[in-house]
Amino acid sequence: MRVMTERPLNAETPTASLRSWITDNEVFFKRNQGQFPDAPINLSQWVLRVDGLVAKALSLSFEDIRRLPKVEVADTLECSGNSRSLLKNKASGNPWTIGGVGNAIWGGIWLKDLLEAAGLQDNARHVGFEGFDKPMGSAGIKFIRSIPLGKAMSSTLLAYEMNGQPLPLKHGYPLRALALGWTGANCVKWLSKITVQEKSSEGFFMDKVYRVFQKGEDPKSGEVVTDIDIKSIIVEPVMDQTLSAGVVPVRGAAYAGEAGIKKVEVSVDHGATWHPAKLIGLEQPYAWRHWEYLWQARTGGDYTIMARATDANGIRQPETAHWNALGYGNNGVREHALKIRINA
Amino acid sequence: MRVMTERPLNAETPTASLRSWITDNEVFFKRNQGQFPDAPINLSQWVLRVDGLVAKALSLSFEDIRRLPKVEVADTLECSGNSRSLLKNKASGNPWTIGGVGNAIWGGIWLKDLLEAAGLQDNARHVGFEGFDKPMGSAGIKFIRSIPLGKAMSSTLLAYEMNGQPLPLKHGYPLRALALGWTGANCVKWLSKITVQEKSSEGFFMDKVYRVFQKGEDPKSGEVVTDIDIKSIIVEPVMDQTLSAGVVPVRGAAYAGEAGIKKVEVSVDHGATWHPAKLIGLEQPYAWRHWEYLWQARTGGDYTIMARATDANGIRQPETAHWNALGYGNNGVREHALKIRINA
Repeated sequence: MRVMTERPLNAETPTASLRSWITDNEVFFKRNQGQFPDAPINLSQWVLRVDGLVAKALSLSFEDIRRLPKVEVADTLECSGNSRSLLKNKASGNPWTIGGVGNAIWGGIWLKDLLEAAGLQDNARHVGFEGFDKPMGSAGIKFIRSIPLGKAMSSTLLAYEMNGQPLPLKHGYPLRALALGWTGANCVKWLSKITVQEKSSEGFFMDKVYRVFQKGEDPKSGEVVTDIDIKSIIVEPVMDQTLSAGVVPVRGAAYAGEAGIKKVEVSVDHGATWHPAKLIGLEQPYAWRHWEYLWQARTGGDYTIMARATDANGIRQPETAHWNALGYGNNGVREHALKIRINA
Repeated sequence: MRVMTERPLNAETPTASLRSWITDNEVFFKRNQGQFPDAPINLSQWVLRVDGLVAKALSLSFEDIRRLPKVEVADTLECSGNSRSLLKNKASGNPWTIGGVGNAIWGGIWLKDLLEAAGLQDNARHVGFEGFDKPMGSAGIKFIRSIPLGKAMSSTLLAYEMNGQPLPLKHGYPLRALALGWTGANCVKWLSKITVQEKSSEGFFMDKVYRVFQKGEDPKSGEVVTDIDIKSIIVEPVMDQTLSAGVVPVRGAAYAGEAGIKKVEVSVDHGATWHPAKLIGLEQPYAWRHWEYLWQARTGGDYTIMARATDANGIRQPETAHWNALGYGNNGVREHALKIRINA
């Protein structure tokens, strides 16, 4: 993995591992604000608290969670700042290239089932999440996030399994929120408490970051980063690779958060002409589609390869991303272009 | 893993790992007749030969394989002898319980694409497979198998990726045949040669084993084990477990090779009454369905739990398996029953 920071751990999925529909847990990208929970979490003592605007607050053991109806779903998780380093106008934050993304099959329960068991009060509008991870810095800031009630009730999982394993510690053991199709920042790890609220949560991780704003603007004036926008990445070939003339497989992934993928097109001439790629592999809600274009590269020279995806709502990836101060959501076609050389 | 033999390696998927739709590569069951290939396979020197009744024999490098159209599919692989040890009338062979099965997402190419590139002669009827694994015993018997041309052309993969990793050595690195929906014996590992033939292959592993016959009969008179028959397994609770009264999740998997799953029913009273289970998780051709029945266990005592599945063609799992000398295909409902105790 390409490790950007060790403490806290921030590391990309290797490009070769993005070639498979399933991203293996070991290489699945890691993005952490603070440190992992202090002590090993003892499952028999672990308790999840559900409180706030509910009819009856709940304290659930892990066995209680396991007794609720089980769900297994695919979800492609992307870091809000993925591809930030590919922006032409630099933005501050971890220098992700394309590997702040991965796809897994998650097992767990619907958050909806828990909230219905607790009972919602009439003024419930948001659901806040808090984890067992350590508070950060001298101010002791916790990674606290909330999502709107609609998302919580429609398509948010509490996951305890990931690709056939108990959820690994690095991915939030034993329980993690997964707002399906939304960026990783909306998916709190090491869950300790779920609070039903009238207003969205406050604090550094709600108000200062994970918002789309321009330099000089108040971060809080910008929209919160939630659903993943339509994007494609090229995983084969890789940047600056030299290849022999003949069949050159151009392969990648396309994803659009809550939306499906309608089509992917590939250009090998810097965007002058476009060719339809074939969508391959599994098709599942909230999961990426893999795609392939078998390019007949007959003439030697330097080439710029691009891919552009269109989602099921007809929304196409922009030529260049909408820039913002923290470089979130870089889904620009040009920023993701690849230069390669063909030897005739 | 429950290791039955070390040399060659034969080991079951642990029951806890059967709870997830994806079976992690590390714990995915291993079933080998002989030893792994002698030396580490060097990918740059690896060659796959395609010969026999073809217009033009081929020798392909791994890069040649990678340049063919890529496929990613789910496939539930089961050992032909899985559940043999649960038969009441014992049969010879490795004593598999329920763990000779696993589900993965495999990346590779269609065998059809290779065969079409080679060109089939008119009398082509079967496709034989040979691997780099060591010949066995003093007679130097190779694990050679063939499948009918129809299966080879319709739904047989040559896999080089498994659950997001290059195919592991223990699973056939770098390339393995996967006759989708058929038992593992039809899925030759460490592929070295594919031969198009008029007749099916001969030898020990075609004629003496992997056939359904009775004691005293000529093995060759029995049918070859191919497609996996409809079956369900219970993965929670486990045999002889003692549980508290209340909600007891009964969960498992059902699979039927080339057929889909229509329904699963659960009995907690030794087959007297049956309750519909809910099918959960992903639905993909050739892959198992997970299922769940949340049993309200109110009264203490001893219980016998059973599950029975019906495939998309309406074929239901038999009460008891059709016995045969080598104990293949044990899909009996009663053989898979579980005894548990409820403490009131």
